[in-house]
Amino acid sequence: MTNTNREWLLAERPDGEPDTDSFELRETDVPTPDPGELLVRIRYLSVDPYMRGRMRDVESYAEPWDVGDALKGGVVGEVVESESDAYDAGDLVTGEGKWADYATLDADDVAPVDPTIADPEAYLGVLGMPGRTAYFGLLEVGQPKPGDTVVVSGAAGAVGSVVGQIAKRNGCRVVGFAGSDEKTDWLTDDLGFDAAINYKATDDYRAALAEAAPDGVDVYFDNVGGPITDAVFTQLNLDARVAVCGQIAHYNEEGVPTGPRKLPQIIPVRARIEGLLVGDFATRFGEASEQLGRWVATGELEHCETVVEGLENAPDAFLGLFSGDNIGKQVVRVSSPDDE
Amino acid sequence: MTNTNREWLLAERPDGEPDTDSFELRETDVPTPDPGELLVRIRYLSVDPYMRGRMRDVESYAEPWDVGDALKGGVVGEVVESESDAYDAGDLVTGEGKWADYATLDADDVAPVDPTIADPEAYLGVLGMPGRTAYFGLLEVGQPKPGDTVVVSGAAGAVGSVVGQIAKRNGCRVVGFAGSDEKTDWLTDDLGFDAAINYKATDDYRAALAEAAPDGVDVYFDNVGGPITDAVFTQLNLDARVAVCGQIAHYNEEGVPTGPRKLPQIIPVRARIEGLLVGDFATRFGEASEQLGRWVATGELEHCETVVEGLENAPDAFLGLFSGDNIGKQVVRVSSPDDE
Repeated sequence: MTNTNREWLLAERPDGEPDTDSFELRETDVPTPDPGELLVRIRYLSVDPYMRGRMRDVESYAEPWDVGDALKGGVVGEVVESESDAYDAGDLVTGEGKWADYATLDADDVAPVDPTIADPEAYLGVLGMPGRTAYFGLLEVGQPKPGDTVVVSGAAGAVGSVVGQIAKRNGCRVVGFAGSDEKTDWLTDDLGFDAAINYKATDDYRAALAEAAPDGVDVYFDNVGGPITDAVFTQLNLDARVAVCGQIAHYNEEGVPTGPRKLPQIIPVRARIEGLLVGDFATRFGEASEQLGRWVATGELEHCETVVEGLENAPDAFLGLFSGDNIGKQVVRVSSPDDE
Repeated sequence: MTNTNREWLLAERPDGEPDTDSFELRETDVPTPDPGELLVRIRYLSVDPYMRGRMRDVESYAEPWDVGDALKGGVVGEVVESESDAYDAGDLVTGEGKWADYATLDADDVAPVDPTIADPEAYLGVLGMPGRTAYFGLLEVGQPKPGDTVVVSGAAGAVGSVVGQIAKRNGCRVVGFAGSDEKTDWLTDDLGFDAAINYKATDDYRAALAEAAPDGVDVYFDNVGGPITDAVFTQLNLDARVAVCGQIAHYNEEGVPTGPRKLPQIIPVRARIEGLLVGDFATRFGEASEQLGRWVATGELEHCETVVEGLENAPDAFLGLFSGDNIGKQVVRVSSPDDE
């Protein structure tokens, strides 16, 4: 093990669409774990749309990243030095760590990674925060009933792809919006979606949705906002449920975005719209992990990770989220078991 | 009793802001009740903002009014001829009837009016559909807890004035938006609101609300939409509940109104927004009527009706809703017990 470490820091807060100028790669020493901590060699790090919010200097549910500080997010890594009885060197763990080659994590804040269930990177997707978000967001906020039509935006992403599959397990008709034919093919051919709309191939989302969801929309799981969401709101059924998980279409907008007003539309159908953060279900993460792990292990739940190679390319992987480069979960591979 | 009757019909569907051209007063014969029906001399008729929707040729929760047909809505009247065992001539009843001097109502569809509890016109307001809307909308959708801050728009209207008083009974801090100093004085001095904002006297709703609701907003009962609602959404607390009862600011707009997008705002606070129609609580109307009647009889629940005199002025009374002419419930007095 070398003593050289690299970590990404926030160089400046972006105004609107971020670019690589917001990021700076710094060389540091490999840190030394304190008692109770683990020194971890990062294998994979997660880039997620919600991180755009952390680039703003605004208090929110996720702590803002500070200019000059290392960026942090979900990681999977191998313990190389343990100051905790709970883990030994060689163990694979997942938790919140720096975008770095090596990082220290508090042993109390990590969870074990079981590579017999799925490849380690899946612990940043279907078996991590995105999978749990899909699980609780759909089941608790969306409340799908057999026969319901469930529409998912960002359907080929880390969260949406799991939402659609769980909805199918619950006997729903599932329609997804995604941004390429490759993605919509994946949804219908591999994940079992009943229909998928490539929104980049049409400019009439309402007509496309009316065809794909002829009985209207009972549950809408929204990851994107913008014109797709506007179209879905015109076709909500009586007592529809809308889980607002993400609004990636608006994350790079400065100021308050405007669009069609939705409140007049929801009175006739008595729709319920609810903002969703997975952290609110923290006491039940065990239940979700167990259930998702079982489905993944048996192959009943498909998953996919898009891997960008090399810590040095982490900012590009993050920026690619906003142009829809990823199918399934976007991760960055920082190291491999066979690396020296 | 004369044999001459008058009734209002829809002359044409308005485009945008309606005016008196949409209405036509027609002379007809007094109708004859069929078996099971009551012939009622109308005392009061109700004009309500939701009726603007009935002027459109769009299927919705309330049946559209047809051009050339008599307008219908809530009425209170005296039975002059009964073809039902349930009611006798002289009884006061309330139900859905024509905007007319005389109308027939199905005895199964009316409820008795008890003038010892309140004046008959109160059965179109606090003891009628608006009161029940306030009761279920606040308690079931708003779910107020003691110590919550409850904000009501259209607070001096038929629904809002009841919402605020029930919220006070539940130990909440209550803030209302209304459109004149007379109205805000009524809210704070007579109804016990903690604060009231005359939105016509300020152009900074956000600042006014921040001062009136310094701890943020836990429950928002929305009757109006538009810029007031936009301001309230910027100050929602964690797990806030929004009951969307009315959107009068938008009822006269043609096409889909636009404004600030709210979905990005509700994720951090996990707000729940729900469209409200009182008809969904029909099986529990008895409970609401009993409770509201008790509070009104004991004087614990204040109410007020704004009375326009004469059937011939019903359209003006309706149009006045959109300029906020009314304090409390707007009704039209069609006849009095002392009339010939």
